[in-house]
Parts: sequence; structure tokens; C-alpha cells
Amino acid sequence: MEKIVRQSMLYDFYGELLTEHQKSIYEDVVVNDLSYSEIANLNGISRQGVYDLIKRCDKILEEYEAKLRLVEKFVGAKRMAEKIKAEIDALEAKGEERDISLALSEISKLTEALIAEF
Amino acid sequence: MEKIVRQSMLYDFYGELLTEHQKSIYEDVVVNDLSYSEIANLNGISRQGVYDLIKRCDKILEEYEAKLRLVEKFVGAKRMAEKIKAEIDALEAKGEERDISLALSEISKLTEALIAEF
Repeated sequence: MEKIVRQSMLYDFYGELLTEHQKSIYEDVVVNDLSYSEIANLNGISRQGVYDLIKRCDKILEEYEAKLRLVEKFVGAKRMAEKIKAEIDALEAKGEERDISLALSEISKLTEALIAEF
Repeated sequence: MEKIVRQSMLYDFYGELLTEHQKSIYEDVVVNDLSYSEIANLNGISRQGVYDLIKRCDKILEEYEAKLRLVEKFVGAKRMAEKIKAEIDALEAKGEERDISLALSEISKLTEALIAEF
């Protein structure tokens, strides 16, 4: 996974556990895509200060994920839901050529497995 | 929601953020269903001590949920998945009496809404 995507997901899940200051700077990097120099100028801190703060926030967020594994759980559930959707859409598109009852039974099992994830 | 169910869900999601000592006592109440007196005896602390610790843990876990809302999100996603499962099962059972294509289209939309939850 690209670093910025990972940071963005971790921030989505655990961002509220950062301080307001950390959130503001982290959001400028991860959500608003500002450069370290821009953020340094905007906040009257050094570029190194921005770098250190981002690194510290990465560590805090990764520690929450190491303990809670909620990003991992959500990504897994999302993939399962996407698979179910693909199966339903395939059945919709080619229903007449397939054994509907068998296909529905498979989709039902997939959905059951998804429910068990929660 | 019954208090013990709420405690159990909060513990499932955020329990790893408690200390080992807090986890051990909280689990004895919420998972192992021991009485405060039993736990007090087992751990050499007062019954009031157990009560205070549980109350403190409840507060910590509720504060995480107030910030992160992940239990709420998961419960919502689970309900949606259960609804999809019920629709699929109904279609499986009464497929011949229903417009399969219309039903599949509805199920597909429900699944899309579920995916958007993640």
C-alpha cells in the first residue's frame, strides 16, 4: 500500500486520538497534500519540526492499529462486500445462463461469512 | 442495549487499550461473569476497589467510542449485511414467484450502500 494511502486510512480511524495540533498538521500533509515547507511557513515552525511531528503521529497511529487491528478488519470486510456485489452483478447480467438457485446459495454463504466478520 | 452487551462490545473493540490489570479484572466481570465479591477475593482487593475499577474502565472505553465511533460503525454495517442476507435468502426461497432481476437489482443497491459504509 502506498504510504499516503496507509496514513490516510489510519488517520480516518484513529485521527481523533491525536491532539488538535497534531491533527491540524497531519491533515495538512495527508489530506490537504501540502509540502513540509508550506506547513512550516504556515505554522511558524521549522521544516524539521513538521517532519518530526508527522513521524511521531505515524508512530502513534500505527501503535493504535497494532493493538486494535480495526483498519485491517474493515479492509477485509470491505473486500468481502465487494466480492458479494460482483457476484450479484454477474448473476444480474448473465442470470439466464446460470443456475440461479446455486448462485444465490453461494452469495448467501459469502454474506454469512461477512456477517461473521463483525 | 443491555449494559453487559455494551460493555462486551466496547471491550472487544478497545480492550487492548486498557492496562493488563484493568483488562484482567474487566474480563472477569464482562466475559467470565464473576461477581464483584469473587473478583475481590481472587485479587486481594476490596469489593469497592473492583467496582471503582470497572467504572473507570467503562469510562475509558466509552471515551474511545465517543471519539472513534467504531462500534457504532460496525453495528450499522452488520445490520446492513444481515438485511442483504435476508433478501438473498427470501429470493432463494421464493425465487419463482418474484421478479428475479428486480430483486437482484435491489440487493445490488443494498450491497453498494454497505460498501460505501467502509
